[in-house]
Amino acid sequence: MNRIGEKTVTFDKQPRIITSYTIVGPLEGLGPHALTFQEIMPDISLGQDTPEKTERLILEMAIEKTLQSHNLKAEDIQFLIAGDLLNQIGTSAFSARGYSIPFLGIYGACSTFCQALGLSCMLIQGEFAQKVLIGTASHYQTAERQFRYPIELNIQHVATNQHTVTGGASAVISVDGEGPRIIDATFGSITDYGLKDANDLGSAMAPAAFSTLKQHLTDTGRGLDYYDVILTGDLGIQGSKMLKLLLEQENYSGLERLEDAGVQIYGTNQQVGAGGSGSACVAVMTLGYLLNKLNSGKVKKALVIATGAMLSSLSVLQGDSIPCVAHAISIEG
Amino acid sequence: MNRIGEKTVTFDKQPRIITSYTIVGPLEGLGPHALTFQEIMPDISLGQDTPEKTERLILEMAIEKTLQSHNLKAEDIQFLIAGDLLNQIGTSAFSARGYSIPFLGIYGACSTFCQALGLSCMLIQGEFAQKVLIGTASHYQTAERQFRYPIELNIQHVATNQHTVTGGASAVISVDGEGPRIIDATFGSITDYGLKDANDLGSAMAPAAFSTLKQHLTDTGRGLDYYDVILTGDLGIQGSKMLKLLLEQENYSGLERLEDAGVQIYGTNQQVGAGGSGSACVAVMTLGYLLNKLNSGKVKKALVIATGAMLSSLSVLQGDSIPCVAHAISIEG
Repeated sequence: MNRIGEKTVTFDKQPRIITSYTIVGPLEGLGPHALTFQEIMPDISLGQDTPEKTERLILEMAIEKTLQSHNLKAEDIQFLIAGDLLNQIGTSAFSARGYSIPFLGIYGACSTFCQALGLSCMLIQGEFAQKVLIGTASHYQTAERQFRYPIELNIQHVATNQHTVTGGASAVISVDGEGPRIIDATFGSITDYGLKDANDLGSAMAPAAFSTLKQHLTDTGRGLDYYDVILTGDLGIQGSKMLKLLLEQENYSGLERLEDAGVQIYGTNQQVGAGGSGSACVAVMTLGYLLNKLNSGKVKKALVIATGAMLSSLSVLQGDSIPCVAHAISIEG
Repeated sequence: MNRIGEKTVTFDKQPRIITSYTIVGPLEGLGPHALTFQEIMPDISLGQDTPEKTERLILEMAIEKTLQSHNLKAEDIQFLIAGDLLNQIGTSAFSARGYSIPFLGIYGACSTFCQALGLSCMLIQGEFAQKVLIGTASHYQTAERQFRYPIELNIQHVATNQHTVTGGASAVISVDGEGPRIIDATFGSITDYGLKDANDLGSAMAPAAFSTLKQHLTDTGRGLDYYDVILTGDLGIQGSKMLKLLLEQENYSGLERLEDAGVQIYGTNQQVGAGGSGSACVAVMTLGYLLNKLNSGKVKKALVIATGAMLSSLSVLQGDSIPCVAHAISIEG
């Protein structure tokens, strides 16, 4: 079996991220890691008449430029795995129309990127594919409209609110070629501690990140200090604090290795509440910021843990708690 | 490679559907195949105060009874793959809370069931799992509220409207045990012929079903008459007519093998427009009606093709066409 421990799957074919493309919005382009993204949008709309159409265009651009940058055609790819935050993953379905590639739609909220990455590796390790294309995108305005309030209402945010990243990312995972290798993955189960505050998703998601991280370390026999970087996304300031508390309670060492995509993407000078979120956040930070460090040798071993809050506007209105999930992917340079 | 032809994946481990459970609503319980379902709901609400909570309960019951019927525990299962029609697949995420099983959320609209089945088999064939639990559910009232109009408005339906099935289904796919075997699967790409009528999803989905069916037959070198039954779901009356026209145009023989879950589930005497739909429709018809025939030997070889219309209420309001997808799974008794 391609498994170790209770819940971790391993890939001895070590699939590689052979090419990728990241696009971010203007605000994200003012952050400290802007130079690690391939493209910064000149404005928030790209000339589209709704933000939903902009989000779709971002993903189309990310996918197309990922393929172009490696001279790949649709026929070279066996699966397209994509998902996003919008109802019925509209962004992904519409963006996939141009490609005659078998489409697997997924939904994991902000954990979508790691779910796509992990699934890709299972399809490659299982000899169902040689190359898998993955993609995700999110947009501040579409997320505000769908999950919170239309921006025009100018509703005051609270400090624990996260700011949905405008951006998109795509990558090709391949059985051969050059690029960082994916070694193993731990998929998390739905974790729900009963938290109900949709304005504090970081706190709701922290236990899911904790549970998956703990499982990953147990299964692999590694400590936090096995990794040069453990990139969570997107717990934000509040959720990252919670995750560290949970780890400290159980005496884990190596907490200084923890970084969070949501905390880092906007830097410290922008007014974005508890930081960034959205399915694009951990995706652009992994394929931009982290890949940059892996490719330059500054980081040799990294763990990416993407967490998703599986709430809907209706579940919040119906008084439900927030089910969360987290998936961890180990990447080596 | 575990592949044949251009887009078909094969499973020489032949994963089996070792146990399953189907629940349907009262209306579905009046249909001609009612006796093949394990449970018929006494009423549409099951005592819940919103239909969303009922839908969730249906899926929880289906999952729990699937496990119980085979004396399985969460620890015996390596993945739970689930999806549904609701925004952010809320039904699946909430229903999965009770299980410490790694969760993979998917979205394929009414094609969700075949996507889950196909993914399960890839995880088993790829030696990532020995047993995978899958589940899906839908509810007439939740779907009406989300995709059309709240029922209270009493909006007149048109003849091409399909009636979302109230029901849920779950199954365990296993590398060993007894039960029908899954042989291969063809995953479809997003197909969009530009149709925009959200009241005629059958016509929009027929080209996706056609494209995947054609690809499956080409890849496997089979004709329609290789199968005793080809169960589409859920094209409804209108979509089934379209699919047959497309097949006739290219001179396929064996069209009499085609059946549609949406056409059959309510029979001919109920007023349900063009028939049933919803992610539960093809799921309960496969795990109820078809499994019954496979287990009794009346059917030896079957192909199930589930089609999904990936529209959202917002994409319709923004004037978009309807992207569709279809996945085919070949099952032998």
